[in-house]
Amino acid sequence: MTERLDKHILKNGMVVLGEPMEAVSSVAFGFMLPAGAAQLPDGCCGAGAVIADWIFRGAGDKNSRELGDALDGLGLHRASLVSSSHIAIGAVLEAGNLARALDLYADIILKSGLEEEQFELARQLAIDGVKALDDDPRHKVMLKLQEQFYPSPLGRSVLGEIAELKALTAEKTREIIKNKFNLSQTIFAVAGKYNFDEICRQIEDLFITRDEGRGAKDEGQGMRDEGRAKSKYTHINSESAQVHIGLMTETVKPTDEDYYNARVAVSVLSGGMSARLFTEVREKRGLCYAIGARYHGLKEAAGIMCYAGTTPEKSQETLDVVIREFNRLSEGISEEEIERAKVGLKAALILQSESSGSRAGGIGSDYYMLSRVRSLDEIKSKIEATSVDSVLGFLRNNKFGDFTVVTIGPKCLK
Amino acid sequence: MTERLDKHILKNGMVVLGEPMEAVSSVAFGFMLPAGAAQLPDGCCGAGAVIADWIFRGAGDKNSRELGDALDGLGLHRASLVSSSHIAIGAVLEAGNLARALDLYADIILKSGLEEEQFELARQLAIDGVKALDDDPRHKVMLKLQEQFYPSPLGRSVLGEIAELKALTAEKTREIIKNKFNLSQTIFAVAGKYNFDEICRQIEDLFITRDEGRGAKDEGQGMRDEGRAKSKYTHINSESAQVHIGLMTETVKPTDEDYYNARVAVSVLSGGMSARLFTEVREKRGLCYAIGARYHGLKEAAGIMCYAGTTPEKSQETLDVVIREFNRLSEGISEEEIERAKVGLKAALILQSESSGSRAGGIGSDYYMLSRVRSLDEIKSKIEATSVDSVLGFLRNNKFGDFTVVTIGPKCLK
Repeated sequence: MTERLDKHILKNGMVVLGEPMEAVSSVAFGFMLPAGAAQLPDGCCGAGAVIADWIFRGAGDKNSRELGDALDGLGLHRASLVSSSHIAIGAVLEAGNLARALDLYADIILKSGLEEEQFELARQLAIDGVKALDDDPRHKVMLKLQEQFYPSPLGRSVLGEIAELKALTAEKTREIIKNKFNLSQTIFAVAGKYNFDEICRQIEDLFITRDEGRGAKDEGQGMRDEGRAKSKYTHINSESAQVHIGLMTETVKPTDEDYYNARVAVSVLSGGMSARLFTEVREKRGLCYAIGARYHGLKEAAGIMCYAGTTPEKSQETLDVVIREFNRLSEGISEEEIERAKVGLKAALILQSESSGSRAGGIGSDYYMLSRVRSLDEIKSKIEATSVDSVLGFLRNNKFGDFTVVTIGPKCLK
Repeated sequence: MTERLDKHILKNGMVVLGEPMEAVSSVAFGFMLPAGAAQLPDGCCGAGAVIADWIFRGAGDKNSRELGDALDGLGLHRASLVSSSHIAIGAVLEAGNLARALDLYADIILKSGLEEEQFELARQLAIDGVKALDDDPRHKVMLKLQEQFYPSPLGRSVLGEIAELKALTAEKTREIIKNKFNLSQTIFAVAGKYNFDEICRQIEDLFITRDEGRGAKDEGQGMRDEGRAKSKYTHINSESAQVHIGLMTETVKPTDEDYYNARVAVSVLSGGMSARLFTEVREKRGLCYAIGARYHGLKEAAGIMCYAGTTPEKSQETLDVVIREFNRLSEGISEEEIERAKVGLKAALILQSESSGSRAGGIGSDYYMLSRVRSLDEIKSKIEATSVDSVLGFLRNNKFGDFTVVTIGPKCLK
């Protein structure tokens, strides 16, 4: 796992990152545009989902149909993701088609058609997407959990709220795009088979030379607490067949020196068949059909989030056992548990290192979170450096005090 | 994309397949055991889901906990899948741990503990899994669709039915395992970094030398029609927020010479943003938030299946437009549409070729379906050989006559 990192910063501040991968013939790329849900003006929650659809409905000299044809003609597998911080748009494709794909994506970012008629369709689909959450309680409980856990506006639902989506206009959304597609805070990442000099020349040509004369952009809005009191326990009553439990507790951010201790601790809880949540809740007691915990980090705050899906009868015991397992962690962890957690995390790294899509996403997100990119070797040695003592020390200094809990189901829990 | 295929057949009939991949340090492997849902005795629908859980709850000299610890100690990412034909168990992991993983998997297949107490837990989780479908109508509609489309028992739900799961006993399930884990019909596939001679020696040692003296296995039961009349339209009334539409129509099997024409035709319907279902149903009319069609092939029968998720108000129009698009396909397809479909299918091949997990799954499934493994080059040239004429010729000789439709939602359709 020896990697090279390519990096170039354009004079407008846009960052270009690359990680070459040998022996692949694909390439993955992504543009991280600073227009995620937490960056949007109040009352425009969900505009991100509309924007991520609308900008693909015609750009440059192409109408919606022609643009779709052109993208599919390159055989690219699109991936768009709206997060708290960014709208990320990108794709994986055959390396030979990268230059043509970048031409199209530059148009989508800088010269999208943004027609009124297309806006209405994009907005309606975004509204339908929120409504569809009612038939996907597992997804819904985790969105609600983030909303309750993070200080506003960090935890806003990336899908938006129906009332706000209904009030959104094409004009307002155009203004958001104009203000938020700020190239000085945009990160472009590529991984796989590529020529970095050629990419830099092309990106420079597309995003500097042709972009001159565009107005100044706003500088983002940072975190502000909207002052809404957050409840530690939220229940959404529903005639669902199951009880869906989401639980989250604060932990260190990715920039913290204890970050790897936190990752290993989560892995002891939920890293595989032998991990505590799985054995205590599922294997031994047969309490639920699905359970898992993972680290969830934003730049501004981070938590450990847990999902459990269970029957109404077993739901209270499931929640109790999960909280007990979280709390019991700092009381002691065996050498073997730490060793398995470390092996699991390192194995996941190897799999990531073989996927161009994972690597493009990883280097972009690292740069945003840490202002630099960690090599896989660095991550590996940081994981190796953890021990029973370091993980327990971390847990004792960072006791899980407060749990934010959200449930969806026919039954309210204590 | 030049590949080598490694192949060895053990004297008990078990097939060992391998595809080496350069420049990866991972390896993926899978055992395809001929104990899928359609292979099970009547009234034991769902035993597959129980078995895929139960056999991991202790094997050889290890109890459930020790086995989980040992698997996680190798850092492997497990993947188990119950299909109509097989229970497939396997993993992706660091290549250096493959030999130790195979030792454990041989125990899981041949010497699982199969304890009564563990059976009850596995069965209860399987029952909870079926109940959980009520909160996952998208998944439920597609399972029901296969049940209605395929002749029995091919379309049986791989999750089983609650009443049958409740009636299942440990004794009966042990008997199923004894009869159905038939090594002469088992396929082992590996892809990534490995030494084929070493693997063959190890598999031979594990599955022949140590397996001698075990009783004869049954020979499977082939297809039989259980005689239940299948309805062309099934509606499941539900207070869900959306209407979930599943639609399926017969097409050629993977062994048919028209197979690639069928794949290209499906891709014209649903291969990307420019594909017909997406543009006609979603982009132009804003009729639904999710739509897609794909080829679904068993060894005995095959179909094109389509999912659409929409609101109750738009559901009838959505279904009408989808059926119209299926029927309209044979009336004409442009050169550009065929070209984009072919580019998309070839790009997907390249991405598959870079994933050890995809390749291990692909070569195993090819061998089962076709009794041989297609190289990626062969698939690529077969795709390239299709044309407007060949696809239209295929469609005109294989008109979509009958549609099997299943809906879940608050409203019944026509």
